[in-house]
Amino acid sequence: MDAFLQKAKSLTSFLATMEPQQKNTLLLAMADALEAHQEAILEANAKDMDKGVKNTLSAALLDRLKLTPKRIRGMAQAVREIAALKEPVGRVLEGWVVPSGLRIEKVSIPIGVVAIIYESRPNVTSDTAALCFKSGNICVLKGGKEATHSNHAIAKVLQDTLAFNGVDPACISLLPDETREGVATLIRQDAYVDLIIPRGGEGLIRFVSQNATVPVVKHDKGVCHTYVDKEANLDQAMEIVLNAKCQRPSACNALETLLVHEAIASDFVPRIAAALTQVGAKVKGCATTQQFIHVDLATPEDFHTEHLSNALSIKVVADIQEALHHITTYGSSHSEAILTENYTTAEWFLNAVDASCVYVNASTRFTDGGEFGFGAEVGISTNKLHARGPMGINELTTYKYKVYGKGNVRA
Amino acid sequence: MDAFLQKAKSLTSFLATMEPQQKNTLLLAMADALEAHQEAILEANAKDMDKGVKNTLSAALLDRLKLTPKRIRGMAQAVREIAALKEPVGRVLEGWVVPSGLRIEKVSIPIGVVAIIYESRPNVTSDTAALCFKSGNICVLKGGKEATHSNHAIAKVLQDTLAFNGVDPACISLLPDETREGVATLIRQDAYVDLIIPRGGEGLIRFVSQNATVPVVKHDKGVCHTYVDKEANLDQAMEIVLNAKCQRPSACNALETLLVHEAIASDFVPRIAAALTQVGAKVKGCATTQQFIHVDLATPEDFHTEHLSNALSIKVVADIQEALHHITTYGSSHSEAILTENYTTAEWFLNAVDASCVYVNASTRFTDGGEFGFGAEVGISTNKLHARGPMGINELTTYKYKVYGKGNVRA
Repeated sequence: MDAFLQKAKSLTSFLATMEPQQKNTLLLAMADALEAHQEAILEANAKDMDKGVKNTLSAALLDRLKLTPKRIRGMAQAVREIAALKEPVGRVLEGWVVPSGLRIEKVSIPIGVVAIIYESRPNVTSDTAALCFKSGNICVLKGGKEATHSNHAIAKVLQDTLAFNGVDPACISLLPDETREGVATLIRQDAYVDLIIPRGGEGLIRFVSQNATVPVVKHDKGVCHTYVDKEANLDQAMEIVLNAKCQRPSACNALETLLVHEAIASDFVPRIAAALTQVGAKVKGCATTQQFIHVDLATPEDFHTEHLSNALSIKVVADIQEALHHITTYGSSHSEAILTENYTTAEWFLNAVDASCVYVNASTRFTDGGEFGFGAEVGISTNKLHARGPMGINELTTYKYKVYGKGNVRA
Repeated sequence: MDAFLQKAKSLTSFLATMEPQQKNTLLLAMADALEAHQEAILEANAKDMDKGVKNTLSAALLDRLKLTPKRIRGMAQAVREIAALKEPVGRVLEGWVVPSGLRIEKVSIPIGVVAIIYESRPNVTSDTAALCFKSGNICVLKGGKEATHSNHAIAKVLQDTLAFNGVDPACISLLPDETREGVATLIRQDAYVDLIIPRGGEGLIRFVSQNATVPVVKHDKGVCHTYVDKEANLDQAMEIVLNAKCQRPSACNALETLLVHEAIASDFVPRIAAALTQVGAKVKGCATTQQFIHVDLATPEDFHTEHLSNALSIKVVADIQEALHHITTYGSSHSEAILTENYTTAEWFLNAVDASCVYVNASTRFTDGGEFGFGAEVGISTNKLHARGPMGINELTTYKYKVYGKGNVRA
């Protein structure tokens, strides 16, 4: 792996200084090539599907894995959209002149070698490769074993496009060793790898976080809350809560625990529980909630759980402090919302809650690169440093200071 | 240590939402208290000095360790200057409205619990505590063993000031276990600690980087280069090179290896070597350099070394590509300079060199929070992510997104 990563590292300066126009031309060529080599990709995908059926993968997993001509067109289109994004490298983030006369510019630059570990869906291969390429980063991709033929076929199309155009195909790399040992080695190669982005289950994230010497930007779980204040517009609250829980329950920004102020609980809890149940949600509740509706008791374990399903816990709280305390205890600092018409209450919540995204009177489902207007998304970071929340292409850059002198020496 | 760090973590929300005015009032009270309790601090320092003499610390280390009434006034003054800095929390970094009508603000917030590991100089205790307090972070300080009495006395003054004013003194914490095992435990407490900043020798930095599960912002070594191009103003180059090497050789931003274009080497190398030797610098050189001056051969080990002294290596290069190659091979991505009058050459160097600070026609000695206008400095980060180069108080913050809705649900 050493030689492989050394090669990746050796290309960083080359890609970091490639002209935007050339990057975009190459990306458009990659998109065309994905469509032109549709048959090869579908053949590889058929092998993965066969294996998946033999290994009795679930219908949901098989659906994620499956490629079709339409899905390949979608992948190509996503690469074209990434090509159309504003150039992320060379943005002047700040600039000033200091008393000594030096002119200082803080400028965005690529991170270098970025390793991304992900699962199942093969389109992530082309999405991620394109995002890294556009931002001037050499990517090292490690997809799921179940999609290995598809991922290799997709990467080959992208790499062949680079080679055909005279660019080293190793600018887009697939990890040669797909085993867990390969990952274990990769995450300690801080001499060659500048950033690891693990996207996947809790086990993977924990393993990477506990063992990496390379900096990690995690894409961990979301245990998101919505607190319905006593001064909330309850009709609006009905819509927002239903949306936050049910619009796509498998998303990390979906609602897990509904917090309700006790002053409105006898009115709101039965109404929202009935509406949730009607659309198939499975509701549990705290002891106070049980005074209003017939549900199972929500345990601390429930409050800690990212259900990724239509399950939901309701907890009645005495005030906003208790809501904050619950969020601090059980939340994952992902997305938290307050529903209220009271200005002071809203401001207090926005400032006191520590999460990547804090909402007033909106569904937590908006925590998303697309909804935030980033155009394409690397994922949702649960890190506190470097990138927090929806991670767009600009979050695949770091910065340097360019300092313009005229013979300046330090006194 | 668990209970100690749990306590620190529990205070993050309190300090994160403290009003700027209250933080500043408390900081000014801390500054006054440092002066008022000068005798107690000097007594504690005398114990450290006694121990240092017994342990035969070098004169340089003893000087770093020693406190005087004047130095304590300096510490108090530094705390007052930090109080006067612009509030780092709550800065709106970006803001926009998305098509769905949500208003999004990206706002600076404290990081949370910040652990700082440092050495010898006791003034770092009050500087760092004040920087963390002003930026709303709970600090966990781990100073050098040789300064333990001084650090405890200084921390006690700061903590007593907090307690006297009704604020939990644990907002400023000293690590209870000062051993290497204590550090080993601390750096794996990612449940409680949000960031570790190690400042110190290579051994410490390596140990922390290799073993931490908490994110690390390193303050590692600087192997800095200055490349004198064939189109440099050579008189200006003389001044800049002398300044970069000799103005304070022990600094991490001092020059270690001078790269000289071969077209001007026969002229410039003897001139600069004579001037350097005259002020006491110890010069080595590559084989080509040896054709012009009588010096020992610089080995690859020399090129890798941060001398922290007046030692310097000279290497003659064929062109800017060879200069870049040398910098990439031996540099530490800290501070790199080109001296040239050629616009295209300067632009090329600024873009191609990967370092936190890249200079044209200036001394690398300017890589410094004070010189950059940051007012006070946490240190010089050699990280690529989160904070790069001079790290001011704003780099002790991260961000969250505040999202203002009007009943928005996701379609």
